[in-house]
Amino acid sequence: MSDCIFCKIIDGEIPSYTIYEDEDFKVILDAFPGALGHTLILPKEHIADVFCMDSLKLGLIHQLAGKIAEAIKDVCHCDGVNILQNNGIAAGQTVFHYHIHIIPRFDDDGMRFGWATKKFSNEELESIRVLLTKKI
Amino acid sequence: MSDCIFCKIIDGEIPSYTIYEDEDFKVILDAFPGALGHTLILPKEHIADVFCMDSLKLGLIHQLAGKIAEAIKDVCHCDGVNILQNNGIAAGQTVFHYHIHIIPRFDDDGMRFGWATKKFSNEELESIRVLLTKKI
Repeated sequence: MSDCIFCKIIDGEIPSYTIYEDEDFKVILDAFPGALGHTLILPKEHIADVFCMDSLKLGLIHQLAGKIAEAIKDVCHCDGVNILQNNGIAAGQTVFHYHIHIIPRFDDDGMRFGWATKKFSNEELESIRVLLTKKI
Repeated sequence: MSDCIFCKIIDGEIPSYTIYEDEDFKVILDAFPGALGHTLILPKEHIADVFCMDSLKLGLIHQLAGKIAEAIKDVCHCDGVNILQNNGIAAGQTVFHYHIHIIPRFDDDGMRFGWATKKFSNEELESIRVLLTKKI
């Protein structure tokens, strides 16, 4: 897509630190990293988010993410790794081309991926459980 | 594993709000949710983290995650969805049985999945790029 920064990176119009690429995917260092080795995996096709990904590609990109996570653990000697994929502005997505973050984590690195635990009634939980079950 | 809380949930020893299960996976509502509909996907086999997952299972569990994300979007009428998988204490993993969080997000819900952008020299970035490339 002509105004998509990730499409421009995939096309080589914007330079990137490229770790890997094949016919379907490109793996680059994040230009706005939380840590050295923070990596993004992109499908080459312009796909906005997880809701637009076909199932086969979703499986393949996460198999690749597993390999990248392993490489990051080995190379960065980190204490942990987050694999994060955001969909929608409310979820922190800033580029509307599907991407997976692989983030090396270190003890006391100050990053936080958390939430305040919320309380719901048994009725609310059972009601949402039934609705979700019906959709799957 | 006898002292793993997720294994106990999978075995039915500890109750859960179960959305879906098949031979390989169980999908439940998170007992400590950030939002109503916050879901966990678990492999039934006790697997500690992404580094211990085989590639086939990794693909399959994320294909299932895609379906769950879609169901959550439809049922919860949320503005976004995070798909998050933590590996290691430093990354926020608290139960050492691989799991994927699917988190419905709403505008201004106060959750934050972010990091302070760090700056690295071109030499540092190129050096880590080369090391990662060699590992893949």
